[in-house]
Amino acid sequence: MSEKTIKAGIVGGTGYTGGELIRLLAMHPGADIAVITSRSEAGRAVADLFPNLRYRISIDFTAPDLAGLSECDVVFFATPNGTAMTMVADLLQAGVRIIDLSADFRIKDSTIWQQWYGMTHTCPELLDEAVYGLPEVYREAIGAARLVANPGCYPTAVQLGFLPLIEKGLVDPASLIANAVSGVSGAGRKAAIGLLFSEIDENFKAYNVTGHRHLPEIFQGLQAVTEQPVNLTFVPHLAPMVRGIHATLYAKLRDTDVNLHALFQQRYTTEPFVDILPAGQHVETRTVTGSNHCQLSIFRPQDSDTVVVLSVIDNLIKGAAGQAVQNMNIMFGLKETTGLETIAMIP
Amino acid sequence: MSEKTIKAGIVGGTGYTGGELIRLLAMHPGADIAVITSRSEAGRAVADLFPNLRYRISIDFTAPDLAGLSECDVVFFATPNGTAMTMVADLLQAGVRIIDLSADFRIKDSTIWQQWYGMTHTCPELLDEAVYGLPEVYREAIGAARLVANPGCYPTAVQLGFLPLIEKGLVDPASLIANAVSGVSGAGRKAAIGLLFSEIDENFKAYNVTGHRHLPEIFQGLQAVTEQPVNLTFVPHLAPMVRGIHATLYAKLRDTDVNLHALFQQRYTTEPFVDILPAGQHVETRTVTGSNHCQLSIFRPQDSDTVVVLSVIDNLIKGAAGQAVQNMNIMFGLKETTGLETIAMIP
Amino acid sequence: MSEKTIKAGIVGGTGYTGGELIRLLAMHPGADIAVITSRSEAGRAVADLFPNLRYRISIDFTAPDLAGLSECDVVFFATPNGTAMTMVADLLQAGVRIIDLSADFRIKDSTIWQQWYGMTHTCPELLDEAVYGLPEVYREAIGAARLVANPGCYPTAVQLGFLPLIEKGLVDPASLIANAVSGVSGAGRKAAIGLLFSEIDENFKAYNVTGHRHLPEIFQGLQAVTEQPVNLTFVPHLAPMVRGIHATLYAKLRDTDVNLHALFQQRYTTEPFVDILPAGQHVETRTVTGSNHCQLSIFRPQDSDTVVVLSVIDNLIKGAAGQAVQNMNIMFGLKETTGLETIAMIP
Amino acid sequence: MSEKTIKAGIVGGTGYTGGELIRLLAMHPGADIAVITSRSEAGRAVADLFPNLRYRISIDFTAPDLAGLSECDVVFFATPNGTAMTMVADLLQAGVRIIDLSADFRIKDSTIWQQWYGMTHTCPELLDEAVYGLPEVYREAIGAARLVANPGCYPTAVQLGFLPLIEKGLVDPASLIANAVSGVSGAGRKAAIGLLFSEIDENFKAYNVTGHRHLPEIFQGLQAVTEQPVNLTFVPHLAPMVRGIHATLYAKLRDTDVNLHALFQQRYTTEPFVDILPAGQHVETRTVTGSNHCQLSIFRPQDSDTVVVLSVIDNLIKGAAGQAVQNMNIMFGLKETTGLETIAMIP
Repeated sequence: MSEKTIKAGIVGGTGYTGGELIRLLAMHPGADIAVITSRSEAGRAVADLFPNLRYRISIDFTAPDLAGLSECDVVFFATPNGTAMTMVADLLQAGVRIIDLSADFRIKDSTIWQQWYGMTHTCPELLDEAVYGLPEVYREAIGAARLVANPGCYPTAVQLGFLPLIEKGLVDPASLIANAVSGVSGAGRKAAIGLLFSEIDENFKAYNVTGHRHLPEIFQGLQAVTEQPVNLTFVPHLAPMVRGIHATLYAKLRDTDVNLHALFQQRYTTEPFVDILPAGQHVETRTVTGSNHCQLSIFRPQDSDTVVVLSVIDNLIKGAAGQAVQNMNIMFGLKETTGLETIAMIP
Repeated sequence: MSEKTIKAGIVGGTGYTGGELIRLLAMHPGADIAVITSRSEAGRAVADLFPNLRYRISIDFTAPDLAGLSECDVVFFATPNGTAMTMVADLLQAGVRIIDLSADFRIKDSTIWQQWYGMTHTCPELLDEAVYGLPEVYREAIGAARLVANPGCYPTAVQLGFLPLIEKGLVDPASLIANAVSGVSGAGRKAAIGLLFSEIDENFKAYNVTGHRHLPEIFQGLQAVTEQPVNLTFVPHLAPMVRGIHATLYAKLRDTDVNLHALFQQRYTTEPFVDILPAGQHVETRTVTGSNHCQLSIFRPQDSDTVVVLSVIDNLIKGAAGQAVQNMNIMFGLKETTGLETIAMIP
Repeated sequence: MSEKTIKAGIVGGTGYTGGELIRLLAMHPGADIAVITSRSEAGRAVADLFPNLRYRISIDFTAPDLAGLSECDVVFFATPNGTAMTMVADLLQAGVRIIDLSADFRIKDSTIWQQWYGMTHTCPELLDEAVYGLPEVYREAIGAARLVANPGCYPTAVQLGFLPLIEKGLVDPASLIANAVSGVSGAGRKAAIGLLFSEIDENFKAYNVTGHRHLPEIFQGLQAVTEQPVNLTFVPHLAPMVRGIHATLYAKLRDTDVNLHALFQQRYTTEPFVDILPAGQHVETRTVTGSNHCQLSIFRPQDSDTVVVLSVIDNLIKGAAGQAVQNMNIMFGLKETTGLETIAMIP
Repeated sequence: MSEKTIKAGIVGGTGYTGGELIRLLAMHPGADIAVITSRSEAGRAVADLFPNLRYRISIDFTAPDLAGLSECDVVFFATPNGTAMTMVADLLQAGVRIIDLSADFRIKDSTIWQQWYGMTHTCPELLDEAVYGLPEVYREAIGAARLVANPGCYPTAVQLGFLPLIEKGLVDPASLIANAVSGVSGAGRKAAIGLLFSEIDENFKAYNVTGHRHLPEIFQGLQAVTEQPVNLTFVPHLAPMVRGIHATLYAKLRDTDVNLHALFQQRYTTEPFVDILPAGQHVETRTVTGSNHCQLSIFRPQDSDTVVVLSVIDNLIKGAAGQAVQNMNIMFGLKETTGLETIAMIP
């Protein structure tokens, strides 16, 4: 490691997203973890909570402390919603760059944010500056950003699947359907009866059909690339698996003569982490588990005017910690794939 | 058991559907299993293949034999597609009533059947007479039928969810979407690498997006209850669980002032096996596992003109063996719920 | 149902054991549930918490109330340890018979109980009277009992596997090993991070190797049938499944000429719920899931002097609620299998 | 990569072990895969069968061909038993070094091998030369070997757990018990009904209790480090998970005054891939999934004379492909951990 090593801090290192961030940074050749904070676990060895990190991480969790974090080059927030917005301004002033994995800076309109997240936004003045961390759309801005709002897991999978169609005006953006399925780790590492093994295994269900917090985020992202009004029905489901998001996207084509497969390939041809499967092949979640890739399949069943896009990601990697590291790489001028080259295991 | 006990035969008793049929009939107070045939297992004790049936079933599998089957009151076919159509005519002539759990007599148009099932139909002359065994639509005809075509699993879940809307003309039947998820037992008990635990666990995927055999069956069922042209996009998925089908159905409402919940309750008010959950509650597959119930939830997210219906069944019970027993009960004048009163286990 | 119907009360109906008890009693032809108490859910419909019971149970949870419970013929305690011992004396005085599914009355020696359960026993005077509810050993006493201590799940599986060997003095009781594996539902329906799907799935581990509360219970049960000193190493494990206990039992044979298979068959020949598999066949947990059976296999690998007994039960049925109903049947003179005839589902 | 890059060939690249070997070598900085053979998939792109390898492996499977393999520095056999023994002699003569992941060269006594594997050994003359590839015992010999017999998965977990005790004579080697549990991938990628998801999920069972092929391998390995007669009861089990082996080992201590934890730490202090957990902490399989580590816990329940060792590995990594790469590193003078630094994911 050279003298240019990035000094990284992590606020909130005890959840699944935080754990993945620690793991990815521990294997990253261009970054060192200087501090990992946790209110509840301060003083405990990180490797004690995550035995997979034994001999790879020797530091302890510490209580959140502005002084310590201010010495970092970059601070990641892997905290519940509502925490980052209380600390970001001070850290920015100290010259630290921020990648926030929570939802605090994802929605530009603080009124909408407050309505969906049920709390007052204490730092609305930074919403404009914050860059939405989806490199496939905002790479340049991310490179220059002080504050990156790392996207949600569903929004990443859904936007990457819809974007090529909407950018080109090929579908009616007013009648989109996103039927998405998530593994349970997306709900986080929290003691809740609904997340128990005995409640989840051998069970499948939809949830929050009347409205999920990721809906306004997806809406904002899609509306940003078209001038026509976007309308989306988004139904999330929970599957009995730990990791993975599978989105099945439906839209009405305006033109059925376009080579959709070629269109997607062209749109993502230079993207290191978006992969279009050969025509006819179906994506599956396991081939991206542990990897930062999004894989896509495109179908037009019975040659009708309905296009079906299948999009898979690992919710904790491309849907959270991996995309955060990808953003760090962009912000600090590293090769974008640095530290993100792990290949998914089969089986 | 009285002298009125139904004498039942099962052709093809070694698959998952056959096994469930044996189990349900073994607990049925009004039926006795006289014969269970299996080409591959002839001579082996049934309880040897299914140790859960030890001390409950004492007979052996026998080779398929027309004479033995002809002495039954009813014969169930739990065979691969293409077998029932070669035996049904002879059994009907012998006065036996037939419940076919395979797809041989589900599609009225033999040309369409042949196109989707890839073989020649050897008994098209009985297609007209065969009654589609969905009691919630064809109860009266089933009661009088000699030959019942037991519906497929996806078609049962999808039709029960869409029917109230289409019968009343409340949605545009030309833009239906059925996003359905199945447990792996739906693929049967066959040695295939794609069905291995190591291929399925911690994995989620769509399959047959270009066209699944249940599409024409669903189409036929929905078209039968409306004069307007039906058009359906049907995307099946495989989830890492053994049992259960969860269908998420999308349709465009023509009238957003209707009380959808009341409409569904009214439509199914006398149905013993269709249960509308209280408004706002989401169905889940486990609450119908092992039971013959279909449970339904109805939503209109963001008060838009898109209605979302959630429909769950146990693919091997209401989607196969349970519905077959329900049909037997109707055909022989028993109370429709006889032998089908098992309550799903939680957890 | 006749006038002889048993009026049953359940204290603590919101856990997995309580839910199973409700389900079994709801299907029981000789018992009615009069009251189900829950401090936390009082006033809520039982079928709201357990949607599988919709239309089968119409009552609400009520707050625990001695008067209401006193009108029952039998009261089941499906409560955390430490609750039953505070209420049993009053209920007995009111003429109610008790089946306690918690551990309060399982251990005869209150000092040992207090050491393992970490609390003071408030009702030691009833320990002598309480009958240990393992019908295969104490059937006669259960029939006459006012207070039955329903056995733990591990102790049921382990004792049924060891008993024939120890009763006959065939093995050295001082060097027993019980290697047992449980599904997660055995830990109950409680919000704990260690029981989350994301912590359990694709994971296997031993726990409490230094000492598990079921050890003194097993010890007491085995010591009761031999005059030689019993010594047992008991290692419990957690497997990524909801239900089932699989115990692999090891002992040193004193005599390798005995026909062990015949011995086990003879010991359990009249037992309705203990089933010895044919020689050479291995038990598996799924064939007893949802059933009240214990299945056993007996091996002597490489014809050595080590006997290996495999024992499986459903931890929530024969290991808890099913055995409780079996005990109720015995106490009230019903056929022992009444309401316990459900056949396990495969798959 | 330097000019010293190792040129590797893989015979049998379509199974789970072969797939892992490809994945590990694709990420290895000191090796290149020159050829991957498969009789059944010759001509197909490797990344087509393993979509996780898209863009990382561009070669096709080829038919097995001695000439092509002879140009490799090292050839791995990831074939069914009985294949390697027909090709190894020719490849050795061509100067190629061999790492055989099958069982062909693991057992020194060809009579015993033939008895357990049910076929004639066609290359017994190389059994003496073959080095058993357990680096923790045979590191030096592996470094000099032309032919390495890579250990089985159970034998790796069981030997690493028992070795410190037996080498020091601390336990009676004549009464060892190894109760081991494996994930399903250990059975390989083969179409068999017993390995279907619907047969495995929510199920737990022992198998091959009368005798498993890994028994003579474990026996040979333990007998090699003691002059006292070894006797072992080995009971393998199948758990509903894809990866992982968990061995629970029981032995009788001759001396209960030894600090067992310190003994294990000392024995493995320089081993890069054996990790002794802090006293009192229980190993679990997921913390080694995807990693080449073996983790161990040591207990003495109730301070008795029975020691319980818990040992976990990933059956496809330290139990197969990872250990093979570790052996390659030793044979070619690379740092032993090269290419094996992936950290297990939690969750």
